[in-house]
Amino acid sequence: MKQKDIGIVKTEYFTFAEPGHELKLDSGESLCPVTIAYETYGLLNKDKTNAILVAHALSGDAHAAGFHEGDKDPGWWNDLIGPSKALDSEKYFVICSNVIGGCKGSTGPSSIDPKTGKPYALSFPVITIADMVRAQKRLIDHLGIKKLLCVIGGSMGGMQALQWVAAYPNHIQCAIPVATALKHSPQQIAFDEVGRQAVMADPAWNNGNYYGGEKPERGLAVARMIGHITYMSDKSMEEKFSRRLKVKSRSFKFAADFEVEGYLRYRGDDFVKRFDANSYLYITKAMDYFDLSCDKLIAKDKHIDVRFLVIAFKSDWLYPSYQSQDIVRQLKVRGADATYCQINSTYGHDAFLLEVDEETHLIKHFLDKTFCGYDVTREYEI
Amino acid sequence: MKQKDIGIVKTEYFTFAEPGHELKLDSGESLCPVTIAYETYGLLNKDKTNAILVAHALSGDAHAAGFHEGDKDPGWWNDLIGPSKALDSEKYFVICSNVIGGCKGSTGPSSIDPKTGKPYALSFPVITIADMVRAQKRLIDHLGIKKLLCVIGGSMGGMQALQWVAAYPNHIQCAIPVATALKHSPQQIAFDEVGRQAVMADPAWNNGNYYGGEKPERGLAVARMIGHITYMSDKSMEEKFSRRLKVKSRSFKFAADFEVEGYLRYRGDDFVKRFDANSYLYITKAMDYFDLSCDKLIAKDKHIDVRFLVIAFKSDWLYPSYQSQDIVRQLKVRGADATYCQINSTYGHDAFLLEVDEETHLIKHFLDKTFCGYDVTREYEI
Repeated sequence: MKQKDIGIVKTEYFTFAEPGHELKLDSGESLCPVTIAYETYGLLNKDKTNAILVAHALSGDAHAAGFHEGDKDPGWWNDLIGPSKALDSEKYFVICSNVIGGCKGSTGPSSIDPKTGKPYALSFPVITIADMVRAQKRLIDHLGIKKLLCVIGGSMGGMQALQWVAAYPNHIQCAIPVATALKHSPQQIAFDEVGRQAVMADPAWNNGNYYGGEKPERGLAVARMIGHITYMSDKSMEEKFSRRLKVKSRSFKFAADFEVEGYLRYRGDDFVKRFDANSYLYITKAMDYFDLSCDKLIAKDKHIDVRFLVIAFKSDWLYPSYQSQDIVRQLKVRGADATYCQINSTYGHDAFLLEVDEETHLIKHFLDKTFCGYDVTREYEI
Repeated sequence: MKQKDIGIVKTEYFTFAEPGHELKLDSGESLCPVTIAYETYGLLNKDKTNAILVAHALSGDAHAAGFHEGDKDPGWWNDLIGPSKALDSEKYFVICSNVIGGCKGSTGPSSIDPKTGKPYALSFPVITIADMVRAQKRLIDHLGIKKLLCVIGGSMGGMQALQWVAAYPNHIQCAIPVATALKHSPQQIAFDEVGRQAVMADPAWNNGNYYGGEKPERGLAVARMIGHITYMSDKSMEEKFSRRLKVKSRSFKFAADFEVEGYLRYRGDDFVKRFDANSYLYITKAMDYFDLSCDKLIAKDKHIDVRFLVIAFKSDWLYPSYQSQDIVRQLKVRGADATYCQINSTYGHDAFLLEVDEETHLIKHFLDKTFCGYDVTREYEI
């Protein structure tokens, strides 16, 4: 019988700190040293043409697939990464790296600032999606890969895929932005800002200086609860919870009467155990700053050879389909090879993690075609 | 020239505290004394057949129209109430009362508990929409009105209009529920619950005991910010703010870079000056508990003579049109005279306060027809 999962995996770390090679950021500041946590699944082929970079969303990490020793749950996109899966680890070399600014092994606000010997906290520079991708490029260079077969990601991961196109069009063969946008709308900025305000309203946040002390858990939990509402759809909430009570009858207290309330409280409380509040601020800000509209994805009069599969989900109201259609429109205007697909899901934004069969079908086929074309006609063209 | 506005108005207060006449609540508890703040516009006719009750939404109050002495801004529905307006104060006697549980003059958690001489805080009983309407009925009785011409309201005001139908079908001639629902969906409960969690996460909330001390302003501001996002539409936010910056360029700090961020912070900060955090908890809980689905609006085999105008707004995603259609469906099943109208607005849920022309057209015509029919055929039928 064929193995279904990748099995045990380990997070690896790549640090660059050579003088003169610090990471220059959009803010004008620099970051050095920079550590990037990453995982890889499958084997890089001899020609190094089978590498796929998976980019994660707001609360994701480098652990996209397989199991960490002793863990019950696999990585966050295990349904799509592994033998015979959409990102077939028997065929492709799949890389997933944690974004800078995060708190899952890559350098971020909770990392030690070498200048002070203390966590950066808010002295960590505000970063952008382009900065995250700059750091990823260093990792890809370090792995000796000249051209990625694909960059794929959902939500903020999709932004990174698009940013790879904008910054390094000659270093990727195809891009699969899923449930994402060229830029945040004011509504998306608004949801992020309320989340940030919830964190900053918590006195324990203490202007970012809480490391080693009480953490702003209540504020971060509220931020996460807001997030969870936006990740689901009205319909998926109705299907999952309806108005079912957690208790026998209405409590006539401010308890969690309804199942949906209990779920949100649980998700909020669970999140604070595994996420850094300052990272939440930095990463949401990076998403709000992101803007590849108006010729910033592909410059005017420029032709690029990247192929695109753009995926949206019908019930996703956080990243509505029209935003994916905007991406496709901008690609078509520049004559790019772009396929658009809207999956008829009721899961809302979460669909990019849940609509495994539909995504597998689309992605597998698209990658096979790209890889095949790559091997034969475009090898070493850079 | 005809006067456009009502002019100067004053809030009045009605208190009932007679032994044996306390307000019995859905929770099983009782409330006594109960004060209701209310305003009236226009004159009650001799037959007392021209009275319209306006019910307010979550953060509203009794001051629906006209100006308070010295105020620059009129009441919250001044565009719809006044001479020749939708609720024509030259023709109708318009009443608006503040809900119990609120903080605008009616008895609520910030009122003094006569048993302790201190504010109720969380010892105030959890109330329901039915309790709010029970209190309103006492006021209407006190004003000597046997049958209201109409109960009208948007959002939670619409719930009260529906509750009047459920509780006192023989005491109202028509109902106009606007942008409302028979029950909150889990998504609506979720947004309310996150708002409550934001308030309760503020240490200054202190389990509700903050009167006379520091108030949970930051938590309440976050709750209000969440609310404001849900009151607007993706499109109206795009039209109002787009991605315009408040500052010259991105701050690379956690400042309010975008206009939409500044707007939300302003709305949050402004709200805490005029609203009590505990009232926010009580009123949102009442909305979440509300449920007139499944024959609870009109019992099986019961015919009622109330006429209905049900209004929804196309871009309202907090109270989507399908919820208004559910109301109409339930009314039609019981053979009620119901008209449904969806107004093609981009304003989102806020449309019920903003789509003045469309609402005026619909409401004026509907009221005229009802009032006319009332006077001639149905007078004193109760």
